[in-house]
Amino acid sequence: MGDPSGIGPEIIVKALSDKHISRLANITVIGDYFIIEKSKKDLGLKPEFSLLDLSNVPRNNFSYGQHQPSFGRAAVEYIDRAVTILKKGEADALVTAPINKASVRSAGFNDFEGHTEYLAAKTDTKEFAMMFVGKKLKITLVTRHIALRDVPGAVSIGSVCKTIRLTHEHLIKFFHIADPKIAVAGLNPHAGDSGLFGDEEDKVIIPAIEKASSTIKNIYGPVSADAVFYEALKGKFDAIVAMYHDQALAPFKTLYFRSGVNLTLGLPFIRTSPDHGTAFDIAGKGIADPASIKE
Amino acid sequence: MGDPSGIGPEIIVKALSDKHISRLANITVIGDYFIIEKSKKDLGLKPEFSLLDLSNVPRNNFSYGQHQPSFGRAAVEYIDRAVTILKKGEADALVTAPINKASVRSAGFNDFEGHTEYLAAKTDTKEFAMMFVGKKLKITLVTRHIALRDVPGAVSIGSVCKTIRLTHEHLIKFFHIADPKIAVAGLNPHAGDSGLFGDEEDKVIIPAIEKASSTIKNIYGPVSADAVFYEALKGKFDAIVAMYHDQALAPFKTLYFRSGVNLTLGLPFIRTSPDHGTAFDIAGKGIADPASIKE
Repeated sequence: MGDPSGIGPEIIVKALSDKHISRLANITVIGDYFIIEKSKKDLGLKPEFSLLDLSNVPRNNFSYGQHQPSFGRAAVEYIDRAVTILKKGEADALVTAPINKASVRSAGFNDFEGHTEYLAAKTDTKEFAMMFVGKKLKITLVTRHIALRDVPGAVSIGSVCKTIRLTHEHLIKFFHIADPKIAVAGLNPHAGDSGLFGDEEDKVIIPAIEKASSTIKNIYGPVSADAVFYEALKGKFDAIVAMYHDQALAPFKTLYFRSGVNLTLGLPFIRTSPDHGTAFDIAGKGIADPASIKE
Repeated sequence: MGDPSGIGPEIIVKALSDKHISRLANITVIGDYFIIEKSKKDLGLKPEFSLLDLSNVPRNNFSYGQHQPSFGRAAVEYIDRAVTILKKGEADALVTAPINKASVRSAGFNDFEGHTEYLAAKTDTKEFAMMFVGKKLKITLVTRHIALRDVPGAVSIGSVCKTIRLTHEHLIKFFHIADPKIAVAGLNPHAGDSGLFGDEEDKVIIPAIEKASSTIKNIYGPVSADAVFYEALKGKFDAIVAMYHDQALAPFKTLYFRSGVNLTLGLPFIRTSPDHGTAFDIAGKGIADPASIKE
C-alpha cells in the first residue's frame, strides 16, 4: 500500500476499481483497513480486491501528506509481509506503491535507500538493477539515487558490465526478445567527443562493453545521450543502459510521465512500481492519476 | 558553411533549394565555390542564394569526413568573415553550419570550445548562454560542453543567476513573451530529495533563484529534471534553465531530433545553428537531413 499518507491508497483503489485491472490476476493488497476504507469512501469507489490488513496505521488525527515515523514503519511492514509471501511461493509478483524515504528513515531505517535496494537485501540478491519500461523504451540504470557529484566515481567497468548482463538476461526472460540489441549511453556530453571532455568513455565504458561483448552479442556504444533515446524509439535498440538517474529519467518521464513502469531486475520474483513518488502535495485530494500503477 | 568535409554544404544546398526558406530573407552563404558547386552537382540541386567565396579549401584530393587542419581553418574563416559583416550592420542574423572541434583545434586554435564561446569572444560578449528551441520547449544551459565530473563545480549562484537573467531577457526580446514563467531544474535526482542526495540545490540553486527573484517575477524551482520538461510541454513554463548538457539535450533531442535549433543568447546579433554536428559518417552520401538548419 506504500505510505498511508501519500497517494498510494488512492491509486490502488482507483486502479482496482477498473475491472480490466482487477481481473488480470488474483490481487491481494497488503495494507491497512482504516486507510483503504477511508480512500474508498472519499473516492466513492467499490474496487474488487482482497485486503491483507496489517492494521498498523494510528487512527487518531490521521491526515494526508505528513512525514510520520509511524507511516514509514507501516510502509516497511507491508513490504516485509510481501517478501514473506513471495518467498513461500504464495504469490508470483509484487507491485509496490510509493513510500516516503524521509519517513522510512525517521522510523529507524537510517540507511534506507529505496524499495529496490531494500528488496535486494531482503532476498540476498547481489546483482540487481532498476529498469524503466515505457511503450517504446526500456532503460536500465548503472547508478540510481545518488548525488550527481558521485556518479562518475560509481560508474565502473564492473557496474556497467553487470548492468549490461542483467539487461540482456531480462530482455530474454521477461520480454521474450530472443536476440536483444542493447545500447550503452556515454557519461559525458557527446559521449566525451573523442576524449575532448571527460575520459570515462575511454577508461571505463568502452572496456566494459568489450568485456560484456566476450559473452553477449549486439552491445553498442558508448552512444551520446542526446541521440540514444531517439534511436531506440526508432527501433534501433531493444534497451538502453544509462549511466545515471536523470540521464534516463529526464527523457523517459518526458515521454511516459503517466504510464512509465519501474521494474527491478535480478530479484527472485517480478517486482514493478509506478515511476512516481508519494506526491504529498496532492495526497487525499482525489486527483492522483492511477495510470502508472495500472501499467 | 561550416566544415567543408562535413554535412554543412549539403544541408545548406538542400535547405536553400526550398523556396520557402530561400525567400525568407536575403541570404548570403559564406563558403567555398568549389565545395558548394560540388555539393550542388552531387545532389542535382539548383538552390537560390548568393555566395561569398573565400576560396579557402584545397582542391587536391578533397574527400568528405576527414579531420584536416585546412578544413578547420577554413571553417573559422567563414565565422570571422560573418562577424565582420554583422559588426558593420550589413546583416541581421547568422546561421552557422556544423564545424569539427578537433579539426579547428588542429588548425592552431588550441583552446577552441565551440561556435558559441568563439562568437562571444569575437564580440566582447561577457554574458551569454546557449538556448535550445523546439516547438514546445525552450531550454537554456548553465554549463555547456564540459565533462560531467566538472558540472557540480561549475554550477554557481552566479552562473545560475546569469542564465536565468539571460533567459528572461530573451524570452521577451526574441519571443515577445511579456511575462515569462521560467523553471529552474535541480542538479541532483529528484532535485536532491530534500537534501538526501546532493546539497547543490540548498547551497546554490535555491539562493540563485532567490537572488534572481529580487528583480524578476515567476521563477520556479528547483524542479526535478524528471518532471520539469513534461510540465513545460504541458504549458506550465515558457522556458527551463537546465544545469548541464545532457540534462537538457537528452529529453530535447528525443523530442526534436530533426527540428531542434540552437540559439545563442547575449550576442549583439541573432545567431542560430542546427542542433547536430558535422556527421562525418554520412557526409557526402546525400542523405543528410536539412530539417534543423531550415528551422
